[in-house]
Amino acid sequence: MNMDTIDYQGLLERVCEETRPLAGKGHAADYIPALAEISTDHFGMALIDTKGGLYSVGDADIPFSIQSISKVFTLTLALRELGNEVWSRVGREPSGHPFNSLIQLENEQGIPRNPFINAGALVVADMLLEAHPDPRDKILTFVRMLSANNSILIDERVALSEKRAAHRNAALTHFMKSFGNIGGEVEDVLNLYCNHCSIAMSCIDLARAFRFLAQKGIHQRFEEPVLTFSLTKRLNSLMMTSGLYNESGEFAYRVGLPAKSGVGGGIVAVLPGHFSMAAWGPGLNERGNSLRGIEALDRFTTISGLSIF
Amino acid sequence: MNMDTIDYQGLLERVCEETRPLAGKGHAADYIPALAEISTDHFGMALIDTKGGLYSVGDADIPFSIQSISKVFTLTLALRELGNEVWSRVGREPSGHPFNSLIQLENEQGIPRNPFINAGALVVADMLLEAHPDPRDKILTFVRMLSANNSILIDERVALSEKRAAHRNAALTHFMKSFGNIGGEVEDVLNLYCNHCSIAMSCIDLARAFRFLAQKGIHQRFEEPVLTFSLTKRLNSLMMTSGLYNESGEFAYRVGLPAKSGVGGGIVAVLPGHFSMAAWGPGLNERGNSLRGIEALDRFTTISGLSIF
Amino acid sequence: MNMDTIDYQGLLERVCEETRPLAGKGHAADYIPALAEISTDHFGMALIDTKGGLYSVGDADIPFSIQSISKVFTLTLALRELGNEVWSRVGREPSGHPFNSLIQLENEQGIPRNPFINAGALVVADMLLEAHPDPRDKILTFVRMLSANNSILIDERVALSEKRAAHRNAALTHFMKSFGNIGGEVEDVLNLYCNHCSIAMSCIDLARAFRFLAQKGIHQRFEEPVLTFSLTKRLNSLMMTSGLYNESGEFAYRVGLPAKSGVGGGIVAVLPGHFSMAAWGPGLNERGNSLRGIEALDRFTTISGLSIF
Amino acid sequence: MNMDTIDYQGLLERVCEETRPLAGKGHAADYIPALAEISTDHFGMALIDTKGGLYSVGDADIPFSIQSISKVFTLTLALRELGNEVWSRVGREPSGHPFNSLIQLENEQGIPRNPFINAGALVVADMLLEAHPDPRDKILTFVRMLSANNSILIDERVALSEKRAAHRNAALTHFMKSFGNIGGEVEDVLNLYCNHCSIAMSCIDLARAFRFLAQKGIHQRFEEPVLTFSLTKRLNSLMMTSGLYNESGEFAYRVGLPAKSGVGGGIVAVLPGHFSMAAWGPGLNERGNSLRGIEALDRFTTISGLSIF
Repeated sequence: MNMDTIDYQGLLERVCEETRPLAGKGHAADYIPALAEISTDHFGMALIDTKGGLYSVGDADIPFSIQSISKVFTLTLALRELGNEVWSRVGREPSGHPFNSLIQLENEQGIPRNPFINAGALVVADMLLEAHPDPRDKILTFVRMLSANNSILIDERVALSEKRAAHRNAALTHFMKSFGNIGGEVEDVLNLYCNHCSIAMSCIDLARAFRFLAQKGIHQRFEEPVLTFSLTKRLNSLMMTSGLYNESGEFAYRVGLPAKSGVGGGIVAVLPGHFSMAAWGPGLNERGNSLRGIEALDRFTTISGLSIF
Repeated sequence: MNMDTIDYQGLLERVCEETRPLAGKGHAADYIPALAEISTDHFGMALIDTKGGLYSVGDADIPFSIQSISKVFTLTLALRELGNEVWSRVGREPSGHPFNSLIQLENEQGIPRNPFINAGALVVADMLLEAHPDPRDKILTFVRMLSANNSILIDERVALSEKRAAHRNAALTHFMKSFGNIGGEVEDVLNLYCNHCSIAMSCIDLARAFRFLAQKGIHQRFEEPVLTFSLTKRLNSLMMTSGLYNESGEFAYRVGLPAKSGVGGGIVAVLPGHFSMAAWGPGLNERGNSLRGIEALDRFTTISGLSIF
Repeated sequence: MNMDTIDYQGLLERVCEETRPLAGKGHAADYIPALAEISTDHFGMALIDTKGGLYSVGDADIPFSIQSISKVFTLTLALRELGNEVWSRVGREPSGHPFNSLIQLENEQGIPRNPFINAGALVVADMLLEAHPDPRDKILTFVRMLSANNSILIDERVALSEKRAAHRNAALTHFMKSFGNIGGEVEDVLNLYCNHCSIAMSCIDLARAFRFLAQKGIHQRFEEPVLTFSLTKRLNSLMMTSGLYNESGEFAYRVGLPAKSGVGGGIVAVLPGHFSMAAWGPGLNERGNSLRGIEALDRFTTISGLSIF
Repeated sequence: MNMDTIDYQGLLERVCEETRPLAGKGHAADYIPALAEISTDHFGMALIDTKGGLYSVGDADIPFSIQSISKVFTLTLALRELGNEVWSRVGREPSGHPFNSLIQLENEQGIPRNPFINAGALVVADMLLEAHPDPRDKILTFVRMLSANNSILIDERVALSEKRAAHRNAALTHFMKSFGNIGGEVEDVLNLYCNHCSIAMSCIDLARAFRFLAQKGIHQRFEEPVLTFSLTKRLNSLMMTSGLYNESGEFAYRVGLPAKSGVGGGIVAVLPGHFSMAAWGPGLNERGNSLRGIEALDRFTTISGLSIF
């Protein structure tokens, strides 16, 4: 197929239209009151190609809580800072267990399976606490730079709501600390984690921010590569095998693109060499991923024949 | 990069040369006496591109025991026969456990995580037993057709050796039968499994046979597609997340190509749209994958910049 | 309390009467057709004190399938033969998992937690196969001697029925063989196991047979002790911690006597220094133990104040 | 045997003498600095029979950190307060996992297996927090009353040391709170737990305090029974199946008495109807139980033939 002639805008509109019956379906994340209030009728998509062309549909410019998508940003920062040392404290294998399981952690002596399960992201947060005096600000600055949007904020209400419900994450952090894999105070790690999960961004922001993953590490707004090609490849493969919680295999299989989801209903996906794109629909399926978002991405790749496979 | 001008032959030779220090390193699979005898000095690679160009180096035409690589062939046959019904009896998610774990199976009531762990391949063998009067012959005929090589055989000595060591697989099969997920006789399932694992093929045979996975399901030797584009995409994504046992995440991360390995020391990898390739080195690392094979594929993609990411 | 004046017969009758509302409740073991046919209306109890006084009520002389109760006999034989060497191949700790779990076995490298879970009893059967030319006959002779009843038989129909449903046990045996903890043929081990589980005995037979456990290892029909006091103590403590599958703690807590149950609906209990007793009611609770049998033993100890505690 | 004529004092002295080669062996608990300092040369035993006769040997009147032995006191208080309601929040089955495992907790949705594993004791502490305005004082008063010793104190240094090392317990508590099985603040639960574990008592104090368990719930210092006979039986059976961490089965098997151990090196055991006794030796075996204490109790029951079996 000639990639130059693909009508991205038409594709987005068609996919949005065809998935309209799913509007309002699924349930918003209910363990965080501030998220539970969001209407499941929202839906938006945005795509940015490697030539800078921007395409969008629906609620593409409404900011929403990015939740676990933020784990890509913190991991990227940690990799920039520490390189492959990161892997001494967190693994790179897919997890056969639910995203917040303690079983795996116990079996593997406090080393989380990968940086996208909660335990792994908490370790990454701990790394950033060690590396920066003000890691919260560091993350926000980095994300604003990637998205070319200085108005991106952390939603304090969500962060607070999140912290109140954080007993499972507190358990994970204390548990890893008992194995010596958390250096900072548990309280600080949880704080940072709840804060970066509560960043609010739009589909357009996210598509822009993930651009370097479609461009071998290069991002228009950075002089130096955001990551080396080698680390970029690694980040994409990690999203491929572990980006959608316990539904990663199913998603790789249906959509065939590296991607990362969050319980706020967002999914960001990348076709290396071609584009980065984001979809948002707050209604979740039983595995915590956007019901309409997955369907839309599935159709997008099926109709267009675009896929890394 | 202009893919048309890549010097595949030069790349293979360079990679073969650079990994020579690994010759003789690792250990051959020792649980099967017939495999343990193979010299770990062997090494070969073959690549076939979508235009039919064939490139090879070293022992590329010596047949070896393909072992778990055969699981791709049996799954393909089952998908041709049953389509998506296959997934009612076997999952599609990566397994966080070693390839022959019973824990996962117990937790998930006899449904294996995916068709590449042993339990999953045993269920697929059971499906073929139900679908064909002589499934052993069916598999062999299919593989010969894919490879354009009618001299491909099952190594009876390996198959016998394999059956004698098959207590773990017998346990898996009986266990799944206790959950109702095996319809045939345990003995027959094990027989078929040990037979298809004992097919002997060369790197050149394997590169040819996997060609349809690089070509959206199309294979030169078949009039109809071997699999639909949709199922091809799915098979590739399954290799991506689960093709190298407990090292799948690490491999995806280092090499960035869908691939499948076997304890005979073979690895077959695919770059969709471009080529299929096979490497063979019988010395294994501690996770049961070819030591030199992985290193060679890593260098191949790193030097060339070829990767799905 | 003066143990000399306890009216055992009166107690049995009262308990039988009080538990009559449970007649017909529960379900007979349904995975073995030959057991599923037994009426859940049956109920009987028998008690033999250390002076030889025999007391009984209801269907105390109707033979039923002793099932897992037979594990006490095979373990006793193995201990007589091998002494403490037995413990190199099977553990002595309570199992936190269901009685036929493979998870524990995988975590502990093929060494079953204790001889009363299925895996442990299969290893004990393998020990007897190694120690005797005709272990099936050896067990039967031993049980007849203990019970002073030469008409005790193995119910061939049950044994056959059992073998047909033995996929879980076959899985356990193959699995342990893969770890090197089974020396004989899997087929032979399963055969012996299914045979000894299919011995048919009455409450009176069982009360007699367990007498040595109430008498520090001494049994009237044997010149030498059946077991040393030390091994007798150990067997009792094993019944105390692991005699009723996943309900052992609950039973120890309600009844406070070492005991062993079977899915045929039998339970044998011992008050060291005082008596051995058996109860039989084929209706099982959801953990596989006799519903009325447990209630009857609970009342028996509560009313009488008899308990090791 | 005529229990009236047993020479308890002679037995204690003989056992103390025979186990002298174990003095200094094992290691003191090292995860709590304040415990690690204790000399492993200490050893003492005390026994009190149901007629009030007190016998002791060695360091029987030196107070030491009772640690997990305190779980018997808090459970007793909870049972006095809430009766069988206790069991809606904590189970009664032996745990096949190490004492501080999270795996079991995850599998069983936040309900600990029994009140003697850490998770269970933390839930019991939470119950006491709900039931009393000053539970720390309540526990101390209760223990002083049972031991007839008003000088019993909480070792604040140990409590503090303990809290600093409490990440595993914090993980357990947060985890259970995420399942809704902890009502109070995590901080308060951990505080109370670390405090009651840090009570310091001598062998004589402990033998006295456990007397009610040898006397069907009756204690000389209380007008009313401490517990009903039924609950006493239950507490004994719980100690029998779960009193010595992952060594409970082994201990039941060697010693044959209900008992509870602590990592301070203490073990308290009971022969219902006859006596309660305590042993103390700070050198631990690899399962966290007193090396010399277990050996001494083993010899004590073997020489005397005293055992519930």
